[in-house]
Amino acid sequence: MLYIIGLGLGDENDITLKGLEAIKRCDKVYMEAYTSLLSFGLSPSGLSTLEELYGKQIILADREMVEEGADAILLEASKLHVAFLVVGDPFGATTHADLVLRAKKVGVEVQVVHNASVVNAVGVCGLQLYRYGETVSIPFFTETWRPDSFYEKIKRNRSLGLHTLCLLDIRVKEPSLESLCRGKKSYEPPRFMTIETAIEQLLEVEQLRAESVYSEDSICVGFARLGSENQMVVSGSMKQLREVDFGAPLHCLVIVGETHPMEEEMLEFYAVKEKRASLASPE
Amino acid sequence: MLYIIGLGLGDENDITLKGLEAIKRCDKVYMEAYTSLLSFGLSPSGLSTLEELYGKQIILADREMVEEGADAILLEASKLHVAFLVVGDPFGATTHADLVLRAKKVGVEVQVVHNASVVNAVGVCGLQLYRYGETVSIPFFTETWRPDSFYEKIKRNRSLGLHTLCLLDIRVKEPSLESLCRGKKSYEPPRFMTIETAIEQLLEVEQLRAESVYSEDSICVGFARLGSENQMVVSGSMKQLREVDFGAPLHCLVIVGETHPMEEEMLEFYAVKEKRASLASPE
Repeated sequence: MLYIIGLGLGDENDITLKGLEAIKRCDKVYMEAYTSLLSFGLSPSGLSTLEELYGKQIILADREMVEEGADAILLEASKLHVAFLVVGDPFGATTHADLVLRAKKVGVEVQVVHNASVVNAVGVCGLQLYRYGETVSIPFFTETWRPDSFYEKIKRNRSLGLHTLCLLDIRVKEPSLESLCRGKKSYEPPRFMTIETAIEQLLEVEQLRAESVYSEDSICVGFARLGSENQMVVSGSMKQLREVDFGAPLHCLVIVGETHPMEEEMLEFYAVKEKRASLASPE
Repeated sequence: MLYIIGLGLGDENDITLKGLEAIKRCDKVYMEAYTSLLSFGLSPSGLSTLEELYGKQIILADREMVEEGADAILLEASKLHVAFLVVGDPFGATTHADLVLRAKKVGVEVQVVHNASVVNAVGVCGLQLYRYGETVSIPFFTETWRPDSFYEKIKRNRSLGLHTLCLLDIRVKEPSLESLCRGKKSYEPPRFMTIETAIEQLLEVEQLRAESVYSEDSICVGFARLGSENQMVVSGSMKQLREVDFGAPLHCLVIVGETHPMEEEMLEFYAVKEKRASLASPE
């Protein structure tokens, strides 16, 4: 049996009772390292906190291991109880559909334990979840690679008056230039996109495309460490949010569409000019 | 302090450790009765299961109580630790933004404990969450009231190739005809919309509007008791799904947009012709 268990967003205590019971039943416990270390602000000592809570040793599975080693994990799961831990919900921002699909193909039973993900937790800012359009991803621009397909999607959402959730790029275990040149495995340090960088890239694309989809006066909501005790939620124009120090990862951004009065009242509580309120840690 | 705590989707064990700890800290515990009894399939004995798990007495708060008694709850929360329990995520399909807003206005501190909601748990069917358009609600049609604003929204989503999550109506504590006539408080028995009814209403509107937004051959995914041990997930055409007995509430429906190969492969596992697979309880 393969258990795919969502850990939620904040810290080790966001696991559900059902998830914890499943882990305790398991012979082997893998944890997705792709986003989890960053999300939970985990150091190696943080990992041992989890191991203590779970009463199990955790094997960190990076993206390479999941992609290349999936068959080995599934072979184990055909004989033992194997847990695969995922930050957020198993089918949230980062999808694990591929692992489930492979499991189903080889006849390994799968149980999913759901949890909160960015997709629903952004609701905390007061914008109605059913008034979001398609979600977009903002990738890190490089000198030569500046993909802007998010622009069309934001344009469509805004023409319908809908809010747009922007997921910001995370780069973990990117092969270093040295690695590519010399054929030797070494990696760049992990990088996560800040709200500041996301807004700069958004405005750069608007300037190039010039279809007036949004501007530096467009109202947005910036989120940092969503769902954790020290989360930060700030609303304001792109120009204003670009100046805000949101601190440690992870960040995401919502571009606000047409708003109802109740949505506007909630956004005022998070306005950049006021004290930077946070639902999770009110001062 | 007001704690607004998501209970997740399945049963009492879907609460998070953080949520459980918060409840144990509280002097008073309210639970939203609006959808919770139906979602968790709770009888009065089920409620005592929850009370045992939490070690606290639970006060059921129906919609009337939340709307009319919010000030009283907030007054308590200004002095005591008060928990308000919500099925799913506090900001999921049913929003509690109004209660948060009122709390902020009167200066009551709020802490939110997130959990899974329908909005992310539908990801289990393999359709990518970022490829959903605006969510729609399908209300029960009556003789004289047949609102079809969902049709425009589905049309826009489909023109963009996006999936559409349809939330199906729940009627709890509707005043009975007798109540309206005689001015005496009595209520209709609770009703929840089945996938069959939703599809009939969808097809009726298509027939009237005749803009070929969808047809009885359009592919959908039906979900019953999403996130619970005995959840049911079936994909097929509207015509096929209309014939499926999805059993006890709650139901919801996704109208499938353009699909990627991996999405198609996952949908095949849930196809109506095959054995009705369920991730949560594989046979």
